[in-house]
Amino acid sequence: MKFSPALESLIEALRCLPGVGPRSAQRMSLHLLERDREGAETLAQSLTEAVEKIGHCSRCRNFAEETLCEICADPRRDRSTVCVVESPADVLALEQSASYRGVYFVLMGHLSPIDGIGPDDIGLDVFQRQVTDGEVKEVILATNPTVEGEATAYFLTDMLAGTGISLTRIAHGVPLGGELEYVDGSTLAHALSGRVPVDAQR
Amino acid sequence: MKFSPALESLIEALRCLPGVGPRSAQRMSLHLLERDREGAETLAQSLTEAVEKIGHCSRCRNFAEETLCEICADPRRDRSTVCVVESPADVLALEQSASYRGVYFVLMGHLSPIDGIGPDDIGLDVFQRQVTDGEVKEVILATNPTVEGEATAYFLTDMLAGTGISLTRIAHGVPLGGELEYVDGSTLAHALSGRVPVDAQR
Repeated sequence: MKFSPALESLIEALRCLPGVGPRSAQRMSLHLLERDREGAETLAQSLTEAVEKIGHCSRCRNFAEETLCEICADPRRDRSTVCVVESPADVLALEQSASYRGVYFVLMGHLSPIDGIGPDDIGLDVFQRQVTDGEVKEVILATNPTVEGEATAYFLTDMLAGTGISLTRIAHGVPLGGELEYVDGSTLAHALSGRVPVDAQR
Repeated sequence: MKFSPALESLIEALRCLPGVGPRSAQRMSLHLLERDREGAETLAQSLTEAVEKIGHCSRCRNFAEETLCEICADPRRDRSTVCVVESPADVLALEQSASYRGVYFVLMGHLSPIDGIGPDDIGLDVFQRQVTDGEVKEVILATNPTVEGEATAYFLTDMLAGTGISLTRIAHGVPLGGELEYVDGSTLAHALSGRVPVDAQR
């Protein structure tokens, strides 16, 4: 015996969410039907609207509901600096640090030859045309410090070599507010080898 | 800075799911938009359909797409035995044990005066009329072994006293396949005090 067909389809459909297995999908379905039918309706509507309305910014590839995203459309942003990140969540994190006034380029992934994801799939062809138009002075590589992120950063370094654009990588090291005791070994090794003269920071 | 309005509403709407906080809602939204727009559309449709189609069985209060649920509509089920459970998930668990041929009554909750949930909210008024129609011989109490579940079982015991209906509670004790070492103290205490003569089980 299983649940009724509509309930079974709902359980199955909920499994498209990351981190949701058969048991949580069942718990979620029963919760919605027992206690929050209104929430379920709102969710259905939000999903439909999001899929319909949200596309990609024609310039930076971030999610946008217009041709340009909010940041690319903002005349106060400095177009001569472009920060390359892997996902829209990274843009949000950097924006919340309130320390960056340039624009972004969102790869929506990283190079991963094993999954068949090459440079064109993460928009690097578009990016190359954009940065070589003369306006861009600096490209900041802010891909994740993972194997794929590093490989992507390396590829970009190669791609922009000889264009005269200044290329930088965000600093990696011990996070502020963290205790050395709890920082993993490879971060510590990186922080040590990348040590800077104290005067340079003043 | 936040995400675009449609994306923010989706993140907010996903939080109606149990166990989903702001961070997971954000991760889910980005995942759906980046990698599974089709899944998002299917989910929206399933939610709408489920809310529209799924009501309650007029007899046992379980979820049903018709007036009667599959079990109540099945003429092969034994209507003289009614098992009282808290939720549709409990019905599924009992059905999967393939050891019960009676019918169910689903409370869709438990007594909880502190949340304002009284006997009528969990359908006990309906249940009382049903069980006293003469057909029911035995009521099996299978509410959860929690404080609220026990209180609900106690209330039912009181309610059915003097009706001549045989009232039983599912056995509580050490689960099969478990090792005594890992069974919690209160279950062990219950298993000890509820010990049965070995002959009685043959």
